[in-house]
Amino acid sequence: MYGAVIHAPGDVRYEEREDPAILEPTDAVVRTVAACVCGSDLWRYRGISPVPKPTPIGHEYCGVVEAVGDAVTSVKVGDFVVGGFLYSDNTCPVCRKGAHANCQHGGGYAGCQADRIRVPQADGTLVATPEMPADDLIPSILALSDVMCTGWHAAVSAGVGPGKSVAVVGDGAVGLCAVLAAVQLGAETVIAMSRHDSRQKVATEFGATHIIAERGEDGIAKIRELTEGIGADCVLECVGTQDARLQAVGCVRDGGNIGLVGVPHGELPVDKLFWRNVGIKGGPAHCREYLPQLLELVLARKINPGLVFDLELPLSEIAEAYAAMDERRAIKSLVRP
Amino acid sequence: MYGAVIHAPGDVRYEEREDPAILEPTDAVVRTVAACVCGSDLWRYRGISPVPKPTPIGHEYCGVVEAVGDAVTSVKVGDFVVGGFLYSDNTCPVCRKGAHANCQHGGGYAGCQADRIRVPQADGTLVATPEMPADDLIPSILALSDVMCTGWHAAVSAGVGPGKSVAVVGDGAVGLCAVLAAVQLGAETVIAMSRHDSRQKVATEFGATHIIAERGEDGIAKIRELTEGIGADCVLECVGTQDARLQAVGCVRDGGNIGLVGVPHGELPVDKLFWRNVGIKGGPAHCREYLPQLLELVLARKINPGLVFDLELPLSEIAEAYAAMDERRAIKSLVRP
Repeated sequence: MYGAVIHAPGDVRYEEREDPAILEPTDAVVRTVAACVCGSDLWRYRGISPVPKPTPIGHEYCGVVEAVGDAVTSVKVGDFVVGGFLYSDNTCPVCRKGAHANCQHGGGYAGCQADRIRVPQADGTLVATPEMPADDLIPSILALSDVMCTGWHAAVSAGVGPGKSVAVVGDGAVGLCAVLAAVQLGAETVIAMSRHDSRQKVATEFGATHIIAERGEDGIAKIRELTEGIGADCVLECVGTQDARLQAVGCVRDGGNIGLVGVPHGELPVDKLFWRNVGIKGGPAHCREYLPQLLELVLARKINPGLVFDLELPLSEIAEAYAAMDERRAIKSLVRP
Repeated sequence: MYGAVIHAPGDVRYEEREDPAILEPTDAVVRTVAACVCGSDLWRYRGISPVPKPTPIGHEYCGVVEAVGDAVTSVKVGDFVVGGFLYSDNTCPVCRKGAHANCQHGGGYAGCQADRIRVPQADGTLVATPEMPADDLIPSILALSDVMCTGWHAAVSAGVGPGKSVAVVGDGAVGLCAVLAAVQLGAETVIAMSRHDSRQKVATEFGATHIIAERGEDGIAKIRELTEGIGADCVLECVGTQDARLQAVGCVRDGGNIGLVGVPHGELPVDKLFWRNVGIKGGPAHCREYLPQLLELVLARKINPGLVFDLELPLSEIAEAYAAMDERRAIKSLVRP
């Protein structure tokens, strides 16, 4: 089979790779129907995180089960399935608390931008659709594999709920999904911070009540204008850079919460946050916890996170899928084997 | 009138001070019935925080209203009242969110270990009892001025609720009140970390289900034994030192929460907490938010936080009240003018 392999910063290749197989009785093999490139893949593509050797890449997928190990009971060959970007057993004490990203027997995949993938802990990871989904739903189902669950996690971690004011820092796919999550969770005011036309448009379709193009102190001032002068109850930090984190600190009100899902590349002034009674919580999303509910919303066409994909290419053009996101020509690239 | 003045580390004196007066129409003057020494007063007493000049000290009190400004409507002369360690207006946008410690017009007092004190923003700060309380209730009412609200704040900030497992780091008055708060809020398992007999006894009276005397890695191992091997859902950090903060980080489960109320004197490994999905929240307690509910519980004799006082002295012996706490001969000293 073929799949993507990152060789060095800026160098992702479509290459022949070994076919995955059932190695453990709890495994499944999934034939990928769609995969995609993640903002977090770009940390390596841009040389910010190291690439010590050629490595299969990608962690988002949906597809059809081709084989299952003897112990797998919840999905069967032929099922259409989606799984989160980390596998989980869904039975350990940590999963039973809903913290699947930190599952005691969880981990990452060996590269999902590929024709086929091995999914360990299939029962604790995959969620099947009741029937083969309509083709136009594929992007939204695929979005559940990471960005929509991650945006949802930011909102849940920050305590978003009815009546809250929410500001979202970051207008990438995760930030846009965080807007959608905040709206779904009943927030009253949902402010997307974005200065790109195409992204502003998606934020508005997702239900953002306000768009703020300004950043830094000007952005903070605009947020305060919309929040009785005090800042937002909940800020969803969906970037991870120092600038984005400090933007979040500036936009949140005293006593409010910051939901963190941007991979951390900067400090947080924790003592200052203490005196301001600002909470911080977040990390990798507990996909398996959120998937059943979000998949139901997608299949009922109540949410359409697939809108974040504005480029679709064959898997063989994976290099261009990366380049388009790196150069910000695309919000998020979907690839099909 | 007389009151306490800190002159230098280890040097707190009972001195004549100017009588407080109504300076603003929103002020009240309260004749102190009881005041006390706070663990946070010891930071200066021990020379860890600076004492640039002789300063009136103390921020916990209950007493009888002696005078009110023209704008005060919710309390009247003769009322028995308690207020939090920070005053607040209870009307600004931040207070309306329940974050009274960060009130836009709030602040601290000019020394409450005194015969009389000026309470700014009386309407937004003081809560009156329906009648003169029984004398044996005074310590518990006084405890609401800081330690009980602070323990409660730790628990609320960490999301303590029914069914949760809770570990409390710190067996000072705040830590003990945090135990009481966790029990009241419905936690299933409440673990007090304490190696002092007298404090263990109070923790048990407050409803702790387990006492752990070990610290460091041994303490973490004991917590895990009680929590399916994963750590506590909520850890209440009631000290503030580096050791205590790292103890909290070690005792919390992945995906759990640390409630912070110890005045910060150490770092927190925020990136590590991110990958573990551990939330942190806390700061100075929102006393005015919690006071009505907690006062009701005290007056109904459902909680007795006054148990944390194990030394009572006349205000004139304030120096000994400090020394006893500094030398850990007392958990907390109550003084009466």
